[in-house]
Amino acid sequence: MIRVGVVGGTGYTGVELLRLLAGHPEVRLEAITSRGEAGRPVAELFPNLRGHVDLCFSEPDVARLGRCDLVFFATPNGIAMGMVPELLAAGARVIDLAADFRLRDASQWAQWYGMEHACPGLLAEAVYGLPEVNRAAIREARLVANPGCYPTAVQLGLLPLLEAGVVSAEGLIADCKSGISGAGRKAAVGTLLAEAGDSFKAYAVPGHRHLPEIRQGLEAATGAPVELTFVPHLTPMIRGIHATLYARLRDPDRDLQALFEARYRDEPFVDVLPPGAHPETRSVRGANHCRIAVHRPQDGDTLVVLSVIDNLVKGAAGQAVQNMNLMFGLDEALGLGGIGLLP
Amino acid sequence: MIRVGVVGGTGYTGVELLRLLAGHPEVRLEAITSRGEAGRPVAELFPNLRGHVDLCFSEPDVARLGRCDLVFFATPNGIAMGMVPELLAAGARVIDLAADFRLRDASQWAQWYGMEHACPGLLAEAVYGLPEVNRAAIREARLVANPGCYPTAVQLGLLPLLEAGVVSAEGLIADCKSGISGAGRKAAVGTLLAEAGDSFKAYAVPGHRHLPEIRQGLEAATGAPVELTFVPHLTPMIRGIHATLYARLRDPDRDLQALFEARYRDEPFVDVLPPGAHPETRSVRGANHCRIAVHRPQDGDTLVVLSVIDNLVKGAAGQAVQNMNLMFGLDEALGLGGIGLLP
Amino acid sequence: MIRVGVVGGTGYTGVELLRLLAGHPEVRLEAITSRGEAGRPVAELFPNLRGHVDLCFSEPDVARLGRCDLVFFATPNGIAMGMVPELLAAGARVIDLAADFRLRDASQWAQWYGMEHACPGLLAEAVYGLPEVNRAAIREARLVANPGCYPTAVQLGLLPLLEAGVVSAEGLIADCKSGISGAGRKAAVGTLLAEAGDSFKAYAVPGHRHLPEIRQGLEAATGAPVELTFVPHLTPMIRGIHATLYARLRDPDRDLQALFEARYRDEPFVDVLPPGAHPETRSVRGANHCRIAVHRPQDGDTLVVLSVIDNLVKGAAGQAVQNMNLMFGLDEALGLGGIGLLP
Amino acid sequence: MIRVGVVGGTGYTGVELLRLLAGHPEVRLEAITSRGEAGRPVAELFPNLRGHVDLCFSEPDVARLGRCDLVFFATPNGIAMGMVPELLAAGARVIDLAADFRLRDASQWAQWYGMEHACPGLLAEAVYGLPEVNRAAIREARLVANPGCYPTAVQLGLLPLLEAGVVSAEGLIADCKSGISGAGRKAAVGTLLAEAGDSFKAYAVPGHRHLPEIRQGLEAATGAPVELTFVPHLTPMIRGIHATLYARLRDPDRDLQALFEARYRDEPFVDVLPPGAHPETRSVRGANHCRIAVHRPQDGDTLVVLSVIDNLVKGAAGQAVQNMNLMFGLDEALGLGGIGLLP
Repeated sequence: MIRVGVVGGTGYTGVELLRLLAGHPEVRLEAITSRGEAGRPVAELFPNLRGHVDLCFSEPDVARLGRCDLVFFATPNGIAMGMVPELLAAGARVIDLAADFRLRDASQWAQWYGMEHACPGLLAEAVYGLPEVNRAAIREARLVANPGCYPTAVQLGLLPLLEAGVVSAEGLIADCKSGISGAGRKAAVGTLLAEAGDSFKAYAVPGHRHLPEIRQGLEAATGAPVELTFVPHLTPMIRGIHATLYARLRDPDRDLQALFEARYRDEPFVDVLPPGAHPETRSVRGANHCRIAVHRPQDGDTLVVLSVIDNLVKGAAGQAVQNMNLMFGLDEALGLGGIGLLP
Repeated sequence: MIRVGVVGGTGYTGVELLRLLAGHPEVRLEAITSRGEAGRPVAELFPNLRGHVDLCFSEPDVARLGRCDLVFFATPNGIAMGMVPELLAAGARVIDLAADFRLRDASQWAQWYGMEHACPGLLAEAVYGLPEVNRAAIREARLVANPGCYPTAVQLGLLPLLEAGVVSAEGLIADCKSGISGAGRKAAVGTLLAEAGDSFKAYAVPGHRHLPEIRQGLEAATGAPVELTFVPHLTPMIRGIHATLYARLRDPDRDLQALFEARYRDEPFVDVLPPGAHPETRSVRGANHCRIAVHRPQDGDTLVVLSVIDNLVKGAAGQAVQNMNLMFGLDEALGLGGIGLLP
Repeated sequence: MIRVGVVGGTGYTGVELLRLLAGHPEVRLEAITSRGEAGRPVAELFPNLRGHVDLCFSEPDVARLGRCDLVFFATPNGIAMGMVPELLAAGARVIDLAADFRLRDASQWAQWYGMEHACPGLLAEAVYGLPEVNRAAIREARLVANPGCYPTAVQLGLLPLLEAGVVSAEGLIADCKSGISGAGRKAAVGTLLAEAGDSFKAYAVPGHRHLPEIRQGLEAATGAPVELTFVPHLTPMIRGIHATLYARLRDPDRDLQALFEARYRDEPFVDVLPPGAHPETRSVRGANHCRIAVHRPQDGDTLVVLSVIDNLVKGAAGQAVQNMNLMFGLDEALGLGGIGLLP
Repeated sequence: MIRVGVVGGTGYTGVELLRLLAGHPEVRLEAITSRGEAGRPVAELFPNLRGHVDLCFSEPDVARLGRCDLVFFATPNGIAMGMVPELLAAGARVIDLAADFRLRDASQWAQWYGMEHACPGLLAEAVYGLPEVNRAAIREARLVANPGCYPTAVQLGLLPLLEAGVVSAEGLIADCKSGISGAGRKAAVGTLLAEAGDSFKAYAVPGHRHLPEIRQGLEAATGAPVELTFVPHLTPMIRGIHATLYARLRDPDRDLQALFEARYRDEPFVDVLPPGAHPETRSVRGANHCRIAVHRPQDGDTLVVLSVIDNLVKGAAGQAVQNMNLMFGLDEALGLGGIGLLP
């Protein structure tokens, strides 16, 4: 049994992580911390967990957490980096669901996240936790940076094309639509049902923090600079990300369907749909799958890739459990067998 | 392994049943029938099942179904009664998720469902599949009538009061609100997103088919006539039923919270919330639980019981699997460990 | 032209009031105040008003407001009572959309609203602004207490029955469902789209502030005590209230349809639907109408009345404009001709 | 008063047109036709119109329609072209809200709409009813082809750039998201609330009928071929279109904000937002405005234009009324003063 601690279990990635961990046969939950809710039963805050999680939230305690085999951070950005060095020193391994260890360049991190990085020396060691790219390194990692939700959907959609060099690395466009749970469980006017319901809008068009993360991943795949325009939108639903990706074909004779199928043939959580399909976000609601379709409208030069995930599962907690399974030598899919809830 | 056939797998109770059966360790799916979709892969119609269900829909074939240990009917009303006698004769057991075997009185059935009953002789044998009432009989049953969604939520909310005689059997009110999936997966204007979204209405106030079913269950509990007003409403969400139940107190000194807790102490799928709580339908989204709270506003004579279920799980497919587990001597909760998806 | 000031224009009743006033031919908007947003263009906060409202929010200034013919308060409870005496003294008339002047009994007000009333002497003068009951008094009023949203829907549904004495004043039940905008435009976790979307729940079952307001109105109609159970629910939509009302018939021979039609024959904003109808909240989305249907299921003793309004229009801002029209001798329907937005 | 007939008033563009016409001071509704609903009161089908529209649906009757000054077609594609020649001959003018007269090339029309055009000779006379482009011609037109919803949002967003030649006509991308009412009021599984709610998907990526319409409009503006990729998506809301438009800058020194503001300075229904803004569809819910923002992320070569409309108003019925006002010499904005409903 893996002894697991969760730091910051009061947000949406937190409750989703608890849902998955509570059903995982090889996990024993040791501690779920929250300064604000310390002492309160977890299942009182999240009644879906009644009968499944008996713990109370506790104050974060590095000594106690350090005795865990694995600590997940489901905290706001900037918290994990203050505790991780001590936890690693105590022998625990760490998966950070926030952004603290996602960028390899500390100055770029400081620029996008608005604070200095507390332990830049760990950035080189941290493994970016996208199993479809870094599986071997994740198995050995002490510290895994769990990818962002948009970056997961976008990279899985574009990587086969860029790795194979069949599209230009210039003029890439990622037009992404997210359910509102991506904005987190914090009191805010903009994400009220009466504000965000029955409406649609773009946001952060001038620049979003997931842009450098996506670019870093794509550039690692191509070994060259990538020019990407990333426009996120808020759609009036709770879960799900739909990435609509545009790229300019360089090699019009390539069988793109075969390319995607070959790239993901052995991936347990990437599902390439048949030609002509349009994936729906609800087909992965609550599931750890990414579903992808590739189109070449009117046989033109602009390729369209459609990629959907549940932002809280493959885009956060599910991917974290997948990484945990790799780190501890378990079946990569253990505890992740949940089928999408449809309707 | 239980060899299972599903007749009519193209509706919402069908796909939900397949989701649960695909994850059940003791089930082998033998056939999923649909006249309209015969030959088509099930996972093409329901992409959430890709990778989990490999079968194609097939024509309904009594001989083949009769070789199953258990046949589920997830068909419109009136279909099961035409096939059940032959299946029972062939040795299969049957759980009907439609209404064909829910009422014990064939003439009442004919009145509410607008057709003669095809096998009234089986009505006395059929066991009403509410495990919290009929557990022992379900274990032995050849034919189980799986309860309706509203009747499940209403009966679980009122039974403790009526069994104990603490409320009057007159003037009972069940004000119920259902998500739209209760209306089924059929092309209809009234349930379009543009019609039923962002709006709320009552329907069938003059009379709804679930009224006689509820009344039959409540009268069985009290052994006397029950006067019930049942008003269903459509609420702009996909899954979930919320029953708000009103009853007149006869015994104001009784500890109602204790009464409910005692009644459901050993029930794996009924969860009595602490005093003062208000259950949300989302706390049981995708889960087989019924969550109940009991209130006595301003210490008056009118009692208010709040009862929530997922109409497709405890209100249909989940309860059917619970009944299957009982019929085949398995742990009653096997394959039903799914935790509610929140948010 | 009526010179109008609006105190507290940053909430949902505020923006709805501005929408209606901006299109009203006899209104000149003089000031829209907000401490928090002073200096900011109103249309920046509410982009639907771009091109229609050119004012900026300003600090509340009693001297300036006192020069208006009419001041609306669209503030949280407890604000209006601090400014109204001075405004009345300055010669302005007032419509308060909050609850400060709705209850005639100051001690009851203090009990339900958790603070002492600042000017209890005005409670006797304040006119409860339900035109269908108090039209004559509203015309002459200096100070109008605009009714709450639930109380409007419930009273319009029950008054014909209670005034005519055809139902018992005991055992009345008001099972009400509200869109989320009723909770206001304030940052709060419970009303986030990810929390309140795709879910349904009751709230405040032990007691809600609108209970004494409804009871006061019903008792004024009957001249006797009324026993009412009021259960509000949150439904995942933005606008609309649906009240499902239950009463015990005392006079089973009365033609109830005729009773309702006669009571509301001359009312411009109450629409009695034909027998058997089920009003939808969307039929009044953005409109000032209340639509009502009356049912007597299975000819039993329990009567069911269905009453729908837009909580922000007939339940707040529209009714306030209707009251303004009465107070200033205009056509009662002026500026309120908007037709419900469907779909 | 303009005597107006409406052919096919049972869909969403129909009911929206009736809502606008019922409130228009210069319109007298003469006939609303529907084969399927003939004889039924319009307000019974659309209860929001109770008290505003007293007509019943009638059988389509060319003689009667021909005596109108203006006939609107709110019919499925292919109906108008069968009746228009006779109506024009009778002296009526026509606005077709369907697609029958939108494309100038009859063979292209046949290819995309799957039937031969019934009166190709009228295609040259028909005026494409986008007032921001064709105002003068619309005033004189006998026959106006009211633009599609996507084409309105996309053309208004791209025209300033293409007319000024500041972007390349190659590699244009229109990533569009529509509320479900765009799919119309017909019984269909795919647009049920339980199917399309709380989910997001692209559709018709290989080719959508609005593609040739948009291309025709853009090519008229540039006088040269345009290469456009158009990807429509379904978003779980009722009304609204959000077009996210991508173009490659050719002239990086141009002030784009000034360009848009100058282009639309005198347009009553196009609102250019301040720099950095992100328009929301709800800001135009029920209103005839198009709101636009232009972005150049990270000062790169890819321009992003955000354009929102209400698909049923500026994208259909409102634009039709705007065209009517032009055709009959009225104030272009008459009857179109409705302010967006927010929240």
